Amino acid sequence: MSLSSDEIEQLLTHVDANLDKSLERWFELLRIPSISTDTAYAPQCREAAEWLSDQLSALGFDAAVRDTKGNPMVVAHARQEGGTNALFYGHYDVQPVDPLELWHSDPFEPAMVEDEKGEKHVYARGAADDKGLVMTFVEACRTFLSVKGKLPLGLSFIIEGEEESASRNFLPFVSANADELKADLALVCDTGMWDDQTPAIVTSLRGLVAEDMTITCATRDLHSGMYGSAARNPNQVVADIIASLRNPDGSVAVEGFYDDVRETPPEIVEMWKHLDFDEKEFLGMVGLTTPAGEKGRTVFEQVNARPTCEINGISGGYAGEGFKTVIPAKANAKISFRLVADQDPQKVRDAFRKHVRDRLPPDCRVEFEEHGAAAAVAVPFSGPYIDKAKQALKQEWGTEPVLHGGGGSIPAVESIKKVLGLDALMIGFGRKDDAVHSPNEKLDLEAFHKGIRSWVRILAALG
Amino acid sequence: MSLSSDEIEQLLTHVDANLDKSLERWFELLRIPSISTDTAYAPQCREAAEWLSDQLSALGFDAAVRDTKGNPMVVAHARQEGGTNALFYGHYDVQPVDPLELWHSDPFEPAMVEDEKGEKHVYARGAADDKGLVMTFVEACRTFLSVKGKLPLGLSFIIEGEEESASRNFLPFVSANADELKADLALVCDTGMWDDQTPAIVTSLRGLVAEDMTITCATRDLHSGMYGSAARNPNQVVADIIASLRNPDGSVAVEGFYDDVRETPPEIVEMWKHLDFDEKEFLGMVGLTTPAGEKGRTVFEQVNARPTCEINGISGGYAGEGFKTVIPAKANAKISFRLVADQDPQKVRDAFRKHVRDRLPPDCRVEFEEHGAAAAVAVPFSGPYIDKAKQALKQEWGTEPVLHGGGGSIPAVESIKKVLGLDALMIGFGRKDDAVHSPNEKLDLEAFHKGIRSWVRILAALG
Repeated sequence: MSLSSDEIEQLLTHVDANLDKSLERWFELLRIPSISTDTAYAPQCREAAEWLSDQLSALGFDAAVRDTKGNPMVVAHARQEGGTNALFYGHYDVQPVDPLELWHSDPFEPAMVEDEKGEKHVYARGAADDKGLVMTFVEACRTFLSVKGKLPLGLSFIIEGEEESASRNFLPFVSANADELKADLALVCDTGMWDDQTPAIVTSLRGLVAEDMTITCATRDLHSGMYGSAARNPNQVVADIIASLRNPDGSVAVEGFYDDVRETPPEIVEMWKHLDFDEKEFLGMVGLTTPAGEKGRTVFEQVNARPTCEINGISGGYAGEGFKTVIPAKANAKISFRLVADQDPQKVRDAFRKHVRDRLPPDCRVEFEEHGAAAAVAVPFSGPYIDKAKQALKQEWGTEPVLHGGGGSIPAVESIKKVLGLDALMIGFGRKDDAVHSPNEKLDLEAFHKGIRSWVRILAALG
Repeated sequence: MSLSSDEIEQLLTHVDANLDKSLERWFELLRIPSISTDTAYAPQCREAAEWLSDQLSALGFDAAVRDTKGNPMVVAHARQEGGTNALFYGHYDVQPVDPLELWHSDPFEPAMVEDEKGEKHVYARGAADDKGLVMTFVEACRTFLSVKGKLPLGLSFIIEGEEESASRNFLPFVSANADELKADLALVCDTGMWDDQTPAIVTSLRGLVAEDMTITCATRDLHSGMYGSAARNPNQVVADIIASLRNPDGSVAVEGFYDDVRETPPEIVEMWKHLDFDEKEFLGMVGLTTPAGEKGRTVFEQVNARPTCEINGISGGYAGEGFKTVIPAKANAKISFRLVADQDPQKVRDAFRKHVRDRLPPDCRVEFEEHGAAAAVAVPFSGPYIDKAKQALKQEWGTEPVLHGGGGSIPAVESIKKVLGLDALMIGFGRKDDAVHSPNEKLDLEAFHKGIRSWVRILAALG
């Protein structure tokens, strides 16, 4: 299907005219608290999957909710034999909402707030990551089907419910259903804009190794008056080990961690220095002034092209109100590594565990629990699909899109590359101040609206 | 009042015959969840105070529940003009019960369990610390009043409800009511036996400085994919600071920490080596083998006569099920120092805060909240009251009591010394395996029973 610019205008006018209805559907999905990191919300995750499957079925897709060992997948097909077929990936699960007291409104009751500039923002958990972005794509498909009665290219959906908990069941599912899921390219809508008015295509993603580490000393909690100083304190042991993970220059101290890191070519690092990326503004937006990572690397390089180790959670002993003079039996840390090409997740995991075991004092036992692993991915900077998408985005936003690496990890993108051999076109409409994973997550109404319009243009271009 | 040995036997027979009723009253008190570290339990703390006040009123004491800024005090008087007057101190508040899942029975429904040796143990939060021990004293008083119609000496009670949360309101209350509380000596029942059959009198207590430290970096939680390595992570900062608190030799690394520490005389350290104290057993009882504190000091010296620093709680980021790749805005540690004579709590607090501030990286803010401070206390090893108590304990247990230092802190004992000028006779009947502050706290029935009998003998001896 090749569309004239009049036909495209007609589609875009339909998007504009039906925005309120698109919002209603988006809000319905936002109201389902599909938190995947806590199995207590498994029924809500399934509810979100069913809602999406019903939506896609109503649009004419052959859609179904498909079981996994965890939260189910939504799989839907509207293939076109002989033409281009794309596989769209997104996720319907969301991050937990704690600390709840910092939210200005119910995280599962979307609130549209108009600011002093007259811009409208929709606040809810998942507003941006990823329900809002998935819905920009669904609504773009709906537009084609309403106006044209058919899609401009063959399309399958795979929408998972465990992206926020390391996509544990995605690789097995894709492996088991590889034939069914084959396509010519993957479309992924789970990333952000370069800035408020400049679109972006993400060409690489950092990988992730997530580890849960529990250190146990005594067989029970102890009174620090009775045992203080004589008994090994796991809080101290966890702190000592965490402190040992970083060198004074900000680099990661795990042996061999940088062995396989592919250095960014100097000309690319140089190019990044001329990008419109303001370190001060990027850090200042969240109240910071000084980069904390590897010395001698720009902030842009640190978050886009360098691996890191972050302590995502520590807990041990008494954390409630007041004070308790306890020496706990155990303490825990949740630690993740962001990887770049060509680091091997398993090698990093092994090196980390050895690092910990080598530093374990007497009377301590360590247990590790793995929370998924994904290698970094990188796609070529040009090619037929990416070139068309660039052009379509430029038409919508009036600005050349920026191609850059993403600091985050989308394990599914790695699985899609590994099993199906597909490069992913990663395009999204989130903004840097969307507070994804934080209280008061939002997506701007403009981002949602122009996101739908962008996908209409991209689908038309790819068709 | 001077009592013949027949009269004492008559009192002890009464104790034995009425043990079941004593148990019933003890259990009533144990059923009140008077947790002082969480203000949600303030009504239950008051309920425990009222229960005790009612008990003492019914015995003929002039008793009342007296308000403070926190949980109320129970104050009761039955003075005797011209004779010896003692002030009894205890506390009705208890530690929190978490982790609740490790309890074998409801912590607030006392369970009497008979073991394979036929010994009975009462499991409940506060069974030993301090409700069980307070009730040994109350029941001893009841025995005198039932059998003799009067007490052998003048007696006042002050029972507080914030011992487990640093006795914040005790010093102000005692200072404001010093005249009313004056006495010749203090009696304190909040310590333990030397071993199952050997009583003990505690002659010194470590002091305590408790600090709540919160480190804030960014203005909100961040996504570690987006900000990882560039943004300062407060979990890492808290860990680095905790790691800096100890030297490799196990000593505390805060500058000046040992400046005012009174060294134990070498002959005392030598004497301790010949005490029936088995390091291996003491540590082995809780699954440990290797002392963690200062190298070159015995475990007995470490816990009885050396200061320490313990991390009682750490928390930051995501601690729930699964994983969340967050860089939190803030992280917290609850840190306490056990002090010995002649360390000044304020000086230690100031030095700790300076230690932290000196190590704070850019973009970090630290907030401290103090949770009370008490200097160490030490009482003479002999004198008229302590000598009589030693004799009475020997009669009950058939063994000379051991006089030794206690590793814990009872801030009230320091306040009583400072404001009222009273040395405290610290006698208690807890055993080393009572699991105070831990799940499945217990007091043995024999300890409770012979505790009452011991106080009958001590009161008779002091009278």
